[in-house]
Amino acid sequence: MSTPHKTITYSLRVEFGDCDPAGIVWFPNFFRWIDAASRNFFIQCGVPPWREIEKETGIVGTPIVDTKARFMKTASYGDELQIDVHVPEWRRKSFVQRYHCRRGDTPIMECEEVRIFGGRREDGSWYAFEVPERIRRLCE
Amino acid sequence: MSTPHKTITYSLRVEFGDCDPAGIVWFPNFFRWIDAASRNFFIQCGVPPWREIEKETGIVGTPIVDTKARFMKTASYGDELQIDVHVPEWRRKSFVQRYHCRRGDTPIMECEEVRIFGGRREDGSWYAFEVPERIRRLCE
Amino acid sequence: MSTPHKTITYSLRVEFGDCDPAGIVWFPNFFRWIDAASRNFFIQCGVPPWREIEKETGIVGTPIVDTKARFMKTASYGDELQIDVHVPEWRRKSFVQRYHCRRGDTPIMECEEVRIFGGRREDGSWYAFEVPERIRRLCE
Amino acid sequence: MSTPHKTITYSLRVEFGDCDPAGIVWFPNFFRWIDAASRNFFIQCGVPPWREIEKETGIVGTPIVDTKARFMKTASYGDELQIDVHVPEWRRKSFVQRYHCRRGDTPIMECEEVRIFGGRREDGSWYAFEVPERIRRLCE
Repeated sequence: MSTPHKTITYSLRVEFGDCDPAGIVWFPNFFRWIDAASRNFFIQCGVPPWREIEKETGIVGTPIVDTKARFMKTASYGDELQIDVHVPEWRRKSFVQRYHCRRGDTPIMECEEVRIFGGRREDGSWYAFEVPERIRRLCE
Repeated sequence: MSTPHKTITYSLRVEFGDCDPAGIVWFPNFFRWIDAASRNFFIQCGVPPWREIEKETGIVGTPIVDTKARFMKTASYGDELQIDVHVPEWRRKSFVQRYHCRRGDTPIMECEEVRIFGGRREDGSWYAFEVPERIRRLCE
Repeated sequence: MSTPHKTITYSLRVEFGDCDPAGIVWFPNFFRWIDAASRNFFIQCGVPPWREIEKETGIVGTPIVDTKARFMKTASYGDELQIDVHVPEWRRKSFVQRYHCRRGDTPIMECEEVRIFGGRREDGSWYAFEVPERIRRLCE
Repeated sequence: MSTPHKTITYSLRVEFGDCDPAGIVWFPNFFRWIDAASRNFFIQCGVPPWREIEKETGIVGTPIVDTKARFMKTASYGDELQIDVHVPEWRRKSFVQRYHCRRGDTPIMECEEVRIFGGRREDGSWYAFEVPERIRRLCE
């Protein structure tokens, strides 16, 4: 029996400048919104902003490891879109974050990412923290 | 025995504003460059700009159907990046486009997309053209 | 005695990716929001989307002629900003649009633009329409 | 008799995604390029990247105080643009930076900014450094 995952919805309006000469959303903008929806998920779950988290834990953000996305329908300026976000899987040092972007009931795109809680070494290189128990519990 | 695919390299410099508060490229910008590298591939292969193609064929551009990407190393402002682009597979009504983004010999990210040659109906909806023989031959 | 101008407020939240390595909004993003606030002004005043206006009148949008902006305070991710928009001056073939961007009562930036109602000739060049009486009346 | 100012030219190609549904460059992208041209000016004059400057001096970047811009001609994807940059005026705690953006000999837009060399206090607020003699001499 599966427990439902906590789901947070991020809303946005497509702007004129988000669209390309074909009159539809230029696809990199979807990733802009996906990233905003990712951060919003943590904020709505009660996780403090990264700039505060960093002071306590050294975590600087949630850099992306990989992503895959499918584009089902186009969208254009004036459209109101919703992105439903949840974390279907927590691993030891990474997590999966999933996004369903829709216009009302019409699926527009969907996306699944692997991200880490990232920290930086003195030399500028990055490493993955173990998923903090406290954050995980807030987001499940 | 496989024939090597035509490969076109797109170069770019990472700018200050492409980076986020963690000091590294904000990942949606990679998709901005991927899209530029995609169009550059066609231009360098001798395919005219979409606004000219449209007049002859009705093709408005190459909207994306799906994409997956893997991020191996971070990049920051001042970095010179190269993106090697080729089309490993032509299907009847779509094609696969593959990208290797590197800083010199260091792999930064890689991406594989499915795209179509898209046209628009009167009602604004999109459809996929059969891959034009002429374009395919220029790009193989 | 001056009549107060119709003022429409556009709200936005600053995202992580809107900020640069110094941790503050990268200034070109303010112009992204200004443009969204400009279009929102017309929509809220009852002017239809440009894609509908175009069919009736040939007006394709409101391209910018010049702009000046002053940046008073920085903003960062998580901030909720408001942009108050009005049109202080209507000319024969252009208009002035003014923006006050604030975080609550704290002024963040302000901007004043001249824009036209633009149309396109067959050869791709642009021209300015006389300000349509109907649009002007909706926005005063 | 005036001494000519050191002028550095920044080149760029307009991409499909830089253009809006009217088929022309969406104007906030000009400010993206202006900012890149600003930083490129300092780099070409021999000023180290901000992340290195910061370690020695505390200067984090050159935040913008105000800007004004005029748009003369539109540009579209495929266009190669050049931006000529110089600093016409050094003040005690700020400087003026001027930009002429052109397509070959055709003026596209021009822009004049006031910027500071910015540092940050513990509380996150910003302040302006006196213009460092060393940087000024490299850029004159």
